[in-house]
Amino acid sequence: MREFEFTTRVPYAHVDKMNHVYYANYLVYFEMARSSLLRDAGLPYKDLEARGIMLPVVDVQCRYRQPAHYDDLITVVSALSIHRSRIRIDYRIHRDGTLLAEGCTHHACMNPDGKVLRPPPDLTRLFQP
Amino acid sequence: MREFEFTTRVPYAHVDKMNHVYYANYLVYFEMARSSLLRDAGLPYKDLEARGIMLPVVDVQCRYRQPAHYDDLITVVSALSIHRSRIRIDYRIHRDGTLLAEGCTHHACMNPDGKVLRPPPDLTRLFQP
Amino acid sequence: MREFEFTTRVPYAHVDKMNHVYYANYLVYFEMARSSLLRDAGLPYKDLEARGIMLPVVDVQCRYRQPAHYDDLITVVSALSIHRSRIRIDYRIHRDGTLLAEGCTHHACMNPDGKVLRPPPDLTRLFQP
Amino acid sequence: MREFEFTTRVPYAHVDKMNHVYYANYLVYFEMARSSLLRDAGLPYKDLEARGIMLPVVDVQCRYRQPAHYDDLITVVSALSIHRSRIRIDYRIHRDGTLLAEGCTHHACMNPDGKVLRPPPDLTRLFQP
Repeated sequence: MREFEFTTRVPYAHVDKMNHVYYANYLVYFEMARSSLLRDAGLPYKDLEARGIMLPVVDVQCRYRQPAHYDDLITVVSALSIHRSRIRIDYRIHRDGTLLAEGCTHHACMNPDGKVLRPPPDLTRLFQP
Repeated sequence: MREFEFTTRVPYAHVDKMNHVYYANYLVYFEMARSSLLRDAGLPYKDLEARGIMLPVVDVQCRYRQPAHYDDLITVVSALSIHRSRIRIDYRIHRDGTLLAEGCTHHACMNPDGKVLRPPPDLTRLFQP
Repeated sequence: MREFEFTTRVPYAHVDKMNHVYYANYLVYFEMARSSLLRDAGLPYKDLEARGIMLPVVDVQCRYRQPAHYDDLITVVSALSIHRSRIRIDYRIHRDGTLLAEGCTHHACMNPDGKVLRPPPDLTRLFQP
Repeated sequence: MREFEFTTRVPYAHVDKMNHVYYANYLVYFEMARSSLLRDAGLPYKDLEARGIMLPVVDVQCRYRQPAHYDDLITVVSALSIHRSRIRIDYRIHRDGTLLAEGCTHHACMNPDGKVLRPPPDLTRLFQP
């Protein structure tokens, strides 16, 4: 399974009273990594949406290992897998080799009206084993 | 000019390392107060949008007086004025009589394609002196 | 297990291109409900922190059932359980009887230096069966 | 006055129903640019805070010219000026030569207890004309 890397810096906006990244913001890093993964693989999510293909998150899990702090440079390693109509992305966030958080998202594939679609062949081809 | 009050509680998500509400979040309180003002006046923004009338912010100013903290119950006093096509809303945020921040937003009135519209008569009637 | 209810309104800030609440914001609603639960039970989280007791989230799960939209009035039903040192909170978010999302958080109990603590007796007493 | 450039990509998290960046998020881009400016100038804000020097925003203004959209690569050009104890930063956000927003922040200089300080000489030296 191909892994993709995305690196970003923690803004002041994202840390809480304890100088820890507030827990919901890790999901924003997941999303940024996901967008980056699709762009790097040659299928920007923006283009999928323009074709009427949405991949809304139906389920998320995140385990928090160590806090990320203001100004940290963090890396998200992500990998996408498709099994039939089930799209899953796994994420590991680390800083200098220290694992900070890990999680996964499951996605539906649907049109703008909410009708479930099969994942498009070009997406499937890129990510199926 | 009619004043409207909106009260909300500061979530953990909104405070920074110093336990001060992060400066951009005051603009979210402005927006919540704005939505509440229009709803209380009988013209929910949701309904305006459904009629194809958008009021995007074209300008914002905010002066920060005293920090708001986690779990504070804060009140936003707001007032809307229309002068020709110019829509302006003023805000004062306080906690127990202490002024925390004050500011204003200016709004355009446009359709979903970005074409400038005159403010609708029912909005004008509600807010013109 | 005692259930607590917290109601809030979806701000414009929280919805995405599809007028769906962006997935990370459900975790903010979980947090708001959690703060409200502790306050209603008589132990505001702010007071716990003032005593040097932190309850950081170590794990979160959320399943998204139906989208919440701008201006929706949503209710979070939450319940806290303590089993030895394990603190767990379950959440269900609904709007007018429709389940929108459900999830849970697990929390550590620690001091500001990150040392693990046993949950304080007054917290345990409130929530143990 | 030295200008600094900071480039970032708009996440899905930041856009609203109209696929416009929600107005408060421009202030987050201002902050990211500000952090980047100080880092590039050799005085990371993190280090200033570690020395007990805070630069809280006391005033912000932002004028919105054109909307930024999901996945846009935007650049913030910023410049800091110090006049006596008054610290001001100006920002212009653009995408491919199109001006999207412009604004400024004024900052106090204080210690963690809120006592006003003179801007430190190394900061002044870097930015005074």
